[in-house]
Amino acid sequence: MIKAGIIGATGYVGSELVRILHRHPEVEIKVLTSKNHKNQIYNSIYANFSNICEMKCDENDLDSVVNQLDIIFLSLPHGVTSKLLTDNILKNAKIIDLSADFRLKTVEEYEEWYGIKHNNTVLLNRAVYGLSEWKRELISTSRLIANPGCYPTCALLCLLPLIKEGILDEEHIIIDAKSGVSGAGRSLNLGTHFSECNESIKAYSVVSHRHTPEIEQQLSELNGNKISVTFTPHLLPMNRGILCTCYGDLKKPYSYNDIKKIYEKYYVNEFFIRLMRKSVFPETKWVKGSNYCDIGFSIDERTGRIIIIGVIAYSVLTSK
Amino acid sequence: MIKAGIIGATGYVGSELVRILHRHPEVEIKVLTSKNHKNQIYNSIYANFSNICEMKCDENDLDSVVNQLDIIFLSLPHGVTSKLLTDNILKNAKIIDLSADFRLKTVEEYEEWYGIKHNNTVLLNRAVYGLSEWKRELISTSRLIANPGCYPTCALLCLLPLIKEGILDEEHIIIDAKSGVSGAGRSLNLGTHFSECNESIKAYSVVSHRHTPEIEQQLSELNGNKISVTFTPHLLPMNRGILCTCYGDLKKPYSYNDIKKIYEKYYVNEFFIRLMRKSVFPETKWVKGSNYCDIGFSIDERTGRIIIIGVIAYSVLTSK
Amino acid sequence: MIKAGIIGATGYVGSELVRILHRHPEVEIKVLTSKNHKNQIYNSIYANFSNICEMKCDENDLDSVVNQLDIIFLSLPHGVTSKLLTDNILKNAKIIDLSADFRLKTVEEYEEWYGIKHNNTVLLNRAVYGLSEWKRELISTSRLIANPGCYPTCALLCLLPLIKEGILDEEHIIIDAKSGVSGAGRSLNLGTHFSECNESIKAYSVVSHRHTPEIEQQLSELNGNKISVTFTPHLLPMNRGILCTCYGDLKKPYSYNDIKKIYEKYYVNEFFIRLMRKSVFPETKWVKGSNYCDIGFSIDERTGRIIIIGVIAYSVLTSK
Amino acid sequence: MIKAGIIGATGYVGSELVRILHRHPEVEIKVLTSKNHKNQIYNSIYANFSNICEMKCDENDLDSVVNQLDIIFLSLPHGVTSKLLTDNILKNAKIIDLSADFRLKTVEEYEEWYGIKHNNTVLLNRAVYGLSEWKRELISTSRLIANPGCYPTCALLCLLPLIKEGILDEEHIIIDAKSGVSGAGRSLNLGTHFSECNESIKAYSVVSHRHTPEIEQQLSELNGNKISVTFTPHLLPMNRGILCTCYGDLKKPYSYNDIKKIYEKYYVNEFFIRLMRKSVFPETKWVKGSNYCDIGFSIDERTGRIIIIGVIAYSVLTSK
Repeated sequence: MIKAGIIGATGYVGSELVRILHRHPEVEIKVLTSKNHKNQIYNSIYANFSNICEMKCDENDLDSVVNQLDIIFLSLPHGVTSKLLTDNILKNAKIIDLSADFRLKTVEEYEEWYGIKHNNTVLLNRAVYGLSEWKRELISTSRLIANPGCYPTCALLCLLPLIKEGILDEEHIIIDAKSGVSGAGRSLNLGTHFSECNESIKAYSVVSHRHTPEIEQQLSELNGNKISVTFTPHLLPMNRGILCTCYGDLKKPYSYNDIKKIYEKYYVNEFFIRLMRKSVFPETKWVKGSNYCDIGFSIDERTGRIIIIGVIAYSVLTSK
Repeated sequence: MIKAGIIGATGYVGSELVRILHRHPEVEIKVLTSKNHKNQIYNSIYANFSNICEMKCDENDLDSVVNQLDIIFLSLPHGVTSKLLTDNILKNAKIIDLSADFRLKTVEEYEEWYGIKHNNTVLLNRAVYGLSEWKRELISTSRLIANPGCYPTCALLCLLPLIKEGILDEEHIIIDAKSGVSGAGRSLNLGTHFSECNESIKAYSVVSHRHTPEIEQQLSELNGNKISVTFTPHLLPMNRGILCTCYGDLKKPYSYNDIKKIYEKYYVNEFFIRLMRKSVFPETKWVKGSNYCDIGFSIDERTGRIIIIGVIAYSVLTSK
Repeated sequence: MIKAGIIGATGYVGSELVRILHRHPEVEIKVLTSKNHKNQIYNSIYANFSNICEMKCDENDLDSVVNQLDIIFLSLPHGVTSKLLTDNILKNAKIIDLSADFRLKTVEEYEEWYGIKHNNTVLLNRAVYGLSEWKRELISTSRLIANPGCYPTCALLCLLPLIKEGILDEEHIIIDAKSGVSGAGRSLNLGTHFSECNESIKAYSVVSHRHTPEIEQQLSELNGNKISVTFTPHLLPMNRGILCTCYGDLKKPYSYNDIKKIYEKYYVNEFFIRLMRKSVFPETKWVKGSNYCDIGFSIDERTGRIIIIGVIAYSVLTSK
Repeated sequence: MIKAGIIGATGYVGSELVRILHRHPEVEIKVLTSKNHKNQIYNSIYANFSNICEMKCDENDLDSVVNQLDIIFLSLPHGVTSKLLTDNILKNAKIIDLSADFRLKTVEEYEEWYGIKHNNTVLLNRAVYGLSEWKRELISTSRLIANPGCYPTCALLCLLPLIKEGILDEEHIIIDAKSGVSGAGRSLNLGTHFSECNESIKAYSVVSHRHTPEIEQQLSELNGNKISVTFTPHLLPMNRGILCTCYGDLKKPYSYNDIKKIYEKYYVNEFFIRLMRKSVFPETKWVKGSNYCDIGFSIDERTGRIIIIGVIAYSVLTSK
C-alpha cells in the first residue's frame, strides 16, 4: 500500500483527492492536514464523507509527517510550496504539487505572471510538468511533479498532437475556455457568491490569465518554435467542468481523417482520453466526476480553420 | 396609438413582445394569435400575465386581422413567413418578421443554409435588415423589416465599427458565442430538457450554424470585401442572455484609446449600446430583461489581437 | 415629487429599491448611502444601472440628509436602526425600516429571538407593521413603518384571511417555506458560495428562525387567540423568489368555494394579490421582478386539511 | 457472478442501474433492452459511458432473454409490467420491478390512484415491497420485488421508526417533499423544459400524488392503525436529489435523546442510513450519486411537534 498525505485537504482540490484516493485499492491515506480546520473531523467539513472518512485534520506541518509517507499531495496557495519544499522532504517522499509554483520553466516568468517572489530555482529545475499523457516516464522517475493547471490540462491535450506534428500556424492559436465555479475554489469571493454568478456568464482575466504562459511553454517545448496564444476564460453558472474551444489555422488543407489519424497516433492507448466520433462534440457532463478528457473536432473548410473541443471535470489531476 | 398585432404570440419571442409592447406608452396590442393555443386566454399560457393581459389568442389568420393593425410582428417558424406575406398585407401594415426568411440577401443562400425552399425573391429584395443602430433610416421607411438573429445582433454590434473602419484582418475573425437555453425556444427537445442541459456546457452546430452567413453578409456589405468568419455557438445552463467573444487580428498596432474612439464614433448617441470602461467586460446579467448591448474590449499586445466581448438579453429585437 | 433616500443602498434590498423607485413616476431618489462603497458611482457596484443611475453613494449619515427628504428607506443590519432613529428624524421624514428592529411588538421578544439589545421601546410602540393589505390606513398615517420580513409577508398573506375568519385549528399551523439565495443578502458566507449551495437543497434555522415570532404575533393579533406555528425555511438553488406551503386543519368541512369566497372578501380589490383558479398553484417565476403575491389552495378532504401555496419575489416590500 | 438484465435501460432509472451494476464486483450485465433505441450502442445514448459500456440495446422482449439471466430489473412505464410478468418468468429469474405496478396492496387502490387496469392480483399478492431496511428477509426470499417509489423511500425511512414505536399522533402527519427534475424522467414535457422550470419552484399533484397511498399503506401496516398523511411534492431547479421535511405531533413530550435512541434502535447497523448529529440537517448534495439516506430531526418544544428531514439521491433503489 502506498502511504499518502494530503497537505491542505479541506479545499476543493483536497476533497477531490480524498474522494479518489479513498477508494484507490493501492493507496492508504495516512495524513490530512488543514490550516483552517485543524483537529476537526474531516466529515464535519464535508458531510458527504460521513461514515466514509472519519480522519481528523492535522496541522499543516510537512516536516513532522514526511517520514510516514510515500507520496505527498500539496494543495496549498501559490507561493507557499516553493518556500516549504526542501531536499530532505523530497528524499523522503514523492511530491505532487497542485499549486503553480513549479509549473513555469523560469523564476522570471513565474514572478512576472504571479507577482510574487520565487526563490527556489534549484527545485524548479528538478520539477517535471505532470501531464501524464505527454510526460509519463519523467513523472514516474521524478521526485517533484508540478501538477498542470486545469485550463492547460484541457487545452494542451487538445492541441499537443497537432502542435507536435507542426500542422498549425503558430501565430493563430486561440483558446476560448469555459469553466464551472468550483474551479475558483472554496475561498469566499463576491464573484463566486451564488446570487452574483448564477444565471450569468462573464469573461475574466482577459489577455492576462496566469495559465497563458503555462500553455505557451508546453506548446513551444514540443513544437520547437516560440508559440503565443490568446487565451480567454469564462465563468459559467454550474459547479464543475471545463470546456475548451480551440481554434487553429491549418497550414494546408487536411481532411477529417487526416486529423483523426494524428489524434489516434498519440492517444489510442490513453485510458483517460476519449476521442469522439465524427460530428460529435463533447459536453462537460459526459466526464463528470471522472478523469476523462473527451475530445472532438471539426474542420471549417470555408476558412481553413480547425476547431477542437475538449472537456474535463478538473478532477484530481488538475488544479487552478 | 400604434395598433400592433403579434402573430405567433405564445412562443418565447412572442411572450417577450407582449411584455414589452404592453407597457409601451404609444402601442396598443390589438391582436395575439396562436396556432397551438387558439381561443385560450393568454395568461393561462403565461401565468405571469395574470391580471395584466387578459386577451384571448386568435387563430393565425393574417389576412383577417391586417386591416385593424398598423404594425405586425411575425413570430413564426422559418419558411412560413415567406409564403404568407403578400403585397396586400404590406400595403396595410408594416411588418417586422422575426423569422430568418428575409435576413439573407439571396434565395440561394437561404436555401443552402436553411434547407427549405424560398419562393419570394421579390419581397426579399424589398426587406431591410433590421439592425437599428446601422439601418435606422431604412427601417423607418421600409414596410418589411427582417429582424436580425440573436447571435448576429450581438456579434455585429461588436464587430461592425471595426469592420467599417477596416482595421481588422478580414481572414481572421472568430466569434465564440455562448447562449442561455431559452434561445432554443419553447418547443420540446431532448437537448433542452432540464436534466440534459443543466450543469453542463456544449458547443453545437459547429462550423454549420445558420447565423454564419447572416453575420458574414452584414460584415461584407459594410466592409466591401467578402468576409468569412468562424462562428461557434455554445449552450449554457441559464435561462437567458448571449455573450459573444469576438477575436480579430489588428492590421497594425492600435492603442486602447484608438479603438475606444472608433466605438464612440458610432455608438456615443446610441441609447441601447453601453460601452464599458477600460478593463471592464460585460456579464449577461447586466442586460437582463433589457434591450441593452454592453460592449467591452481588450487588446492582446503579445499577439496583436483584439478581443471584443458583447452581451445582449435577446429581448424583443432579436430572435433565433 | 416625493424626495426619497435609501440608507444602505448597496445591499440587494437597496438595489431593488433603486430599481423600483427609479422608474416610479412620483418619486425622485435624492440620496443613496453606503458604508462600504462611499463616494463610488452606484453603477460601478451594480453595472446593470449603467447609463440609468449615475448617482454617487454618500456616507451613511442619516442626520445630514434627513432635511432634504420626504421619505427614507433604511436598509441596514438588524440592531442598527433602533439606535439611529430619533424623534427629530421622524419629524422630518417618514421612515420605512427594512430591518427587523420594529417588527416585533415587545423589546423582550426582540431580544430573545435576535440576541441583541433594543433600547427604543418608545419608538417601538409608535411603529406600524407595514403589511399594506392589512394595515393600509395605519401605514398611511404613521411616521415609522416596520417593513415585514420576506417569509412573513408571503405566509401572512396566505393565512390571514382564514385566521381572521377563525376557521383554522390554531394549534396545527405549519409553514414550510422555500427561498432562493439572494434572500440571504450580499454578504459573503460559505452557505451561499455558489459551489456550496448550487444543485442542492437544505432546511436551515429549523424551529429557530427569527421570522417565527413575527408570523405568530400578526396571526394572534388578528385572531384574538395566541397562535404558535411551526415554520421551516429551506434554501434553494435559484436567485430569487419565495414559496410558502401552508398547512392548516379546518375546524369543520368547507368546500373549495367557501374558502374561495373568504379570499375574495379580503383580496378582491388588492392590486398585488392574485388569486389562482381552482387547481392552479403558483410558481415563483410568475411573480419574478414584481410585487405580486400569487395564492392558490386545495382542500385535502381525506384529512380535513387545507394546503395554501403562496409566492412572492421578495421585491421592495420585503426584506430578510 | 450474478447475471443481470435491464429491461428499459435507456431511461434515467435504467442508466443509473447501468452505472451501479457496471462496477458491482459480483454482477455482470448481460442484457440491456430499449424500445426507442434498439440496436443502438448504449454509449451513443449516454455518452458518459464511452469506453465503459459498449453493449448494444436489444428489443424489449422479456421472454427471449429470461433464460440467460439470474436477475431482471424492469424499468418500464406503469401498467406494462403487470401485463408482462408470468409465472414462467419468475421461475427463471428474480424480478425487481421499478414501476409502481406491484407496490400497492390491492388492485382497487392501484386502479383508483393510477387510473389504469391491473389484472394481476395473483402476482400482486406474491410481491414484496422492497424497502431493504424494513423488509430485508422477505426481499431475499421473494421472486418479485416491487421497488419503492422515490418519495416513499425517503419519507418512510424518516417516519417508520417513530410509527413503529407509536409515538406520533396518527392524524397529523405531513410530508412536504422537494425533488430535482430528473425524478420526472427523460420523456419530454413542458414542465421539465429547461426554460420553464429553471429559476423557479412549484408544488405539483397537490393532495393527489400517487405516492400518497404507498406511504400510507406502509405506515399503516407497521403501526396497526389506518394512517392518512398529507403529502405535497415540489419541483426544484436542480438535477437530482429528494429532501423530505416530515412533520408529526408527538403524543407526549420526548427529549432529543429519546428520539435519537429510537432511530439508533432501527438503523444503527444499516449501512445506507446515516443519522446526523444534533442540530445537523442533511442537504441533498451530501448523498449525491450514492444510496445513502441521511436523516436529521429536531423537536419543536413550543408546539410539541417533531420535524424530521431526510435526503436521498434517488439512486438505483428508488424510482418515480
